[in-house]
This record gives sequence, structure tokens and C-alpha cells, in this order.
Amino acid sequence: MKPQVAIQDFYPDDVAHCYGCGRLNPHGLHIRSAWDGDETVAVLTPREYHTAVPGYVYGGLIASLVDCHGTGSAALAAYRVAGREPGTSPPLRFLTASLKVDYLRPTPMGIPLEARGRIKEVKPRKVVVDIEVIAGSEVCARGNVVAVLMPEHMASDGSVQPTRHPGHAKPHPSGLS
Amino acid sequence: MKPQVAIQDFYPDDVAHCYGCGRLNPHGLHIRSAWDGDETVAVLTPREYHTAVPGYVYGGLIASLVDCHGTGSAALAAYRVAGREPGTSPPLRFLTASLKVDYLRPTPMGIPLEARGRIKEVKPRKVVVDIEVIAGSEVCARGNVVAVLMPEHMASDGSVQPTRHPGHAKPHPSGLS
Repeated sequence: MKPQVAIQDFYPDDVAHCYGCGRLNPHGLHIRSAWDGDETVAVLTPREYHTAVPGYVYGGLIASLVDCHGTGSAALAAYRVAGREPGTSPPLRFLTASLKVDYLRPTPMGIPLEARGRIKEVKPRKVVVDIEVIAGSEVCARGNVVAVLMPEHMASDGSVQPTRHPGHAKPHPSGLS
Repeated sequence: MKPQVAIQDFYPDDVAHCYGCGRLNPHGLHIRSAWDGDETVAVLTPREYHTAVPGYVYGGLIASLVDCHGTGSAALAAYRVAGREPGTSPPLRFLTASLKVDYLRPTPMGIPLEARGRIKEVKPRKVVVDIEVIAGSEVCARGNVVAVLMPEHMASDGSVQPTRHPGHAKPHPSGLS
């Protein structure tokens, strides 16, 4: 499933150049994350040169998918917990504090990879996400991302700001679909 | 320090196409790992589009550096423990089973990143490596890689084979420099 509308579509322009998921990075991977019920989903089709050994996907690309889908899922969860729609102000943009990937089996080339995220924890400035990377019907990798709200000074025009946030609440099912 | 001779120079041709470190992947990052005393080192200069937010390096690229320098360091350590030089037969080639990266601070663009590895454990089919990613004089990320010997069937011509291996021994200081 390729999302029609993704959280990355709402990242402010000055923080939308990420190589993994920034819509304004012409060289980038353009990973896009959206809700699918209570899970989040992103789909990435590796380019033919994103190989580890011939026939299998490069682990660093899988880590990149987990990374950006982790921060995207964190933003989705933070908006949902705040009871706000992406695109409303102030924008919420997360960075990765910690990334873990277990490679369960070699990931075959030539088919789209689906990353599915489950929100494990939402705090005011920190969201934890578990992610499975699936090729066809097989789970090839399991990831975990600890994402933190981007500090205000990292956005060039100050558009990304910490916001008052209910925190410690569980995500509820409304929000971006 | 950019190594003159790296372990990846000795990967057999049929497993030298890795996007991160394969010398035969024309689109790849060409990460190259070598001993520096009892540590391993690799240097990567991010391309201008390898950005997270403007001015800072993409976390997925840092994960890729940790990933490939982890498997490269594992191969270096396995040859050293086996008392063999890279390039001798049978070749030893490792894959990543597990990858962890803690991002300690934003990593600045525009300067080379140095990854320094410390071998934590060497077993017959498994090597564990701790890696620091340094920009200038600052440690920006800390990684850990569990690398496993590549199964024979993954090499297209069977050139990469499990080998008899002393295992459980600590690495000693001889080997590729």
C-alpha cells in the first residue's frame, strides 16, 4: 500500500530535505509514512544498486527505511495524541536518538518493502516505535526507533518548535489516514 | 586517515557489489575498513545531499557507515584470529545480523566522518564490534554490530565458504595494516 497522503508531505520546507524522507531532496529515497489503522506504514522499492550481495537488499537501506519511518511514525503519533491534524501549527518534527535493526533473513531485491510501525510509547518529547520490514509475506527485519522532538534551533527559520503536548497518553485512533 | 589498503579490496568479486562498501558498485559509498593498531578505521565524506536537516548528516548514512565498517571490521578480526592475511583462501565475508546506533549529537556536514571499531568478541561464525563515528574531534554516534559469517549459498559462485576457525580467541595484533 502506497500512502496517498504522508506525514512527510507536511514537514515544513526548511526541514524537508532529509535524504531518506525529505520531499525536497531530489536525490533522496522519499520514504513516506501514514497511518493504516493503528499501525503506520511506508513502502520503499530499493533501486537496483541498493544491493548487499547480488539478489539481496543492502542492510543500510533497510536501516534507513526503519530510521525515517520511525521518525515519521513518531510525528504521526504525536499529532494524534495532541488531537491535531498534521499541517496544523506548530509543526512536529522528530529526529532519531537511537536505532536498532535485527536482520532476520536476507531481504530479496525486486519487490517493494513494506515497513509497518507500532507505537510503543508517546511522551512529550520522545516517541518509541517498533517496526517490521516485510518483503512479500516475510518479515525480513525488525527495528526499533527512539525518536525525539527536534530542537527548535535546528530548523533554519525556527518553524519547528516544541509544543505543549499532553504526553504520557496512548495514541488514539483519530488522525492522518 | 584514509586507508591505502582495505579489507573490502579483498572481497571476492561476486560479493563486492554492496552499496555501502562494494568496490564493484559504481553507485555505492565505497566504505573501506582497515586496522589502525588494535582498532579498525574507515573514513566517509557524506555527499552534499546526504543531509538530515540542512547542515547535519543523515542518520541512515551514519547507520550505513556503522553497518559496513562493522562487517569489514568483523572480516579483519576473523582473518587476524585465523592467523591469515586477507586475500588468502578461503575468503571470509560477513553479514550484519544486528545493528544498533545511538545518535549522541547532530553530525555536521562538510567534513569527513571517521568510524573507529573495537572488536568485542570473535567466535567461529560471529564477530561483535563497537564503533564510534567521529566528526572532527567529537564522537557523534556510537554503534554496535553483530556480524555473522556469510552462508556459502549466498555467494553466486560458492567462493565464500565457512572455514575452520580457531574461534573464541581474542584478536592479536598481526594482520592487515
